[in-house]
Amino acid sequence: MRRLEDEKILLAHGGGGIMMKELVSFLVDAVGGQEGALQDSAVFDAPGGRLAFTTDSFVVHPLFFPGGDIGHLAVCGTVNDLAVCGAVPKFISLAMIIEEGFPVTDLERIASSISAAAEEAGVTVVTGDTKVVDRGKADGIFINTAGIGVVPAGVSLSSDFAVEGDRIIVSGTIGDHGLAILSMREGIDFGSDLKSDAAPLSKLTVPLLENFAGIRAMRDATRGGLAAVLNEIAVDSNVCVRIEEGFIPVAEAVRNGCELMGYDPLNIANEGKLVAVVDPGEADAVLEAMRGMDLGRDAAIIGEAIAGPVGCVIMKTSFGGERVVDLPYGDLLPRIC
Amino acid sequence: MRRLEDEKILLAHGGGGIMMKELVSFLVDAVGGQEGALQDSAVFDAPGGRLAFTTDSFVVHPLFFPGGDIGHLAVCGTVNDLAVCGAVPKFISLAMIIEEGFPVTDLERIASSISAAAEEAGVTVVTGDTKVVDRGKADGIFINTAGIGVVPAGVSLSSDFAVEGDRIIVSGTIGDHGLAILSMREGIDFGSDLKSDAAPLSKLTVPLLENFAGIRAMRDATRGGLAAVLNEIAVDSNVCVRIEEGFIPVAEAVRNGCELMGYDPLNIANEGKLVAVVDPGEADAVLEAMRGMDLGRDAAIIGEAIAGPVGCVIMKTSFGGERVVDLPYGDLLPRIC
Repeated sequence: MRRLEDEKILLAHGGGGIMMKELVSFLVDAVGGQEGALQDSAVFDAPGGRLAFTTDSFVVHPLFFPGGDIGHLAVCGTVNDLAVCGAVPKFISLAMIIEEGFPVTDLERIASSISAAAEEAGVTVVTGDTKVVDRGKADGIFINTAGIGVVPAGVSLSSDFAVEGDRIIVSGTIGDHGLAILSMREGIDFGSDLKSDAAPLSKLTVPLLENFAGIRAMRDATRGGLAAVLNEIAVDSNVCVRIEEGFIPVAEAVRNGCELMGYDPLNIANEGKLVAVVDPGEADAVLEAMRGMDLGRDAAIIGEAIAGPVGCVIMKTSFGGERVVDLPYGDLLPRIC
Repeated sequence: MRRLEDEKILLAHGGGGIMMKELVSFLVDAVGGQEGALQDSAVFDAPGGRLAFTTDSFVVHPLFFPGGDIGHLAVCGTVNDLAVCGAVPKFISLAMIIEEGFPVTDLERIASSISAAAEEAGVTVVTGDTKVVDRGKADGIFINTAGIGVVPAGVSLSSDFAVEGDRIIVSGTIGDHGLAILSMREGIDFGSDLKSDAAPLSKLTVPLLENFAGIRAMRDATRGGLAAVLNEIAVDSNVCVRIEEGFIPVAEAVRNGCELMGYDPLNIANEGKLVAVVDPGEADAVLEAMRGMDLGRDAAIIGEAIAGPVGCVIMKTSFGGERVVDLPYGDLLPRIC
């Protein structure tokens, strides 16, 4: 692999001269060496039909955490946005804003995570950009990825499409990512097995959509957590979403951590979990298929869409009562992605 | 237009809850109110054929400068990357990293520039993302845009394609953008007419490519300036690029500013100028066509590709000598885009 001679990133690495070319060459090698990666633009053949396009910036703090890092997250986050709108993710862009003084070894580690995540997700980094800002004007590194995916003919998903009777499936335990970040940031050990769930959900969505026409909507439960996604579906589809607390998979460490810190697992961000709205006739088969795949092994049907009150999410609690699951107002855990 | 109740951006505006929805609604309205703009993902029909895909992050300092601002620049920069690879720009994504405490009025002003620039360039903002970082962890606002364009059948441009005899055309005066930023940053007045040249070059490239098959390559002269672009062409095409200093259009204020500050205009960034490599048989006609359009009114043929020395850029100076135009090594003017 080409190496940078400098140990730290300098302002001059962003200046458009020889040093910038060296930085870009180093990064191209580190993200997998694809010819043309990180060029200004990529030109490629696209099939006619529907494409999906998405973007996300990543400002997670800290940059490295149990189960992942900002590079891995930056690929998974964009891949997941494409996956839940039914697309097969194909191409991603990679833009880095690097603070002067950032250690080159950390950059190498992040680039290597990007490479591994892209390979796992089956996407190619085709274009990119690097900027360097003066010390104190960013927080180490911020990464933006944008992505393009191909939506197969016949696939059409929308949070508008839920109807009364549809089952709500979550693909696994919730809250792992947010709690892992919190644990790292605050230096609190909630349990040795707690780590981010960040993963490319296309590994789950692509085979599911090939086999089941009864999937009406999918959303990945990132900022705002499960609560935000369920509220979105309830509002967009004009239904009431009714879930049962006891059915929601939550890992022991996350449950304990949330109790200790006063958080609701329903509001905590995930980076490798999706919610699917499924025709009741296919729900059991979709659940079984999810459970047969690594990323869906803890999947569960947690509730269903009912007639009313429209736009509301209602949860039957473990104590037998009912409560409204609101969208959180402000920020509980900043900078988790 | 929907307004935010807060005067400044808070961390909570990035948290995935109601306040984030309010921020996104405000921004969607401000960038032009397109339904779906700034959603997680966009799905659209694409024609079969070749697409171009690009990304750029913008960290320009200061955010507002003569002739533009970070919002206008963020649209033009990405549009220009698409334009010079021969594409008709169609869709852009918009991702903002905002520092806690950023004034909402500035955000509104930037969003309004984005809207105007997108309209001028004929692109639609189809997807987006907002992140908020704690005070002191960014510098006001950073913006990333990615873009998708459609490459018309028959159009194929590359910096590899220059051959001996091809003419080198620059679309107008060089150095205006970089000097305008420098002037603002340092508080030095180089001349009242000095302003950024940031503009969507697709207004120039799309009609040119419809009419002239002899255009072999185009590059926009951003970081590294004209010198970087000419070196890239010389290296990629295995030719020598020979230019004449006296033919290069430079505005009086830029010439004076560069002399005063010790800069070479050839290294200064532009955001609305391109270099075209054109078959000698069509060069005069391309030049005339450029000059007939607003963005190309000061276009000039500045030199040609010759046989050797391969990979070099040589300039006949105004004093009658010759010098090699090197790629700058490090950074001359940081954060100009």
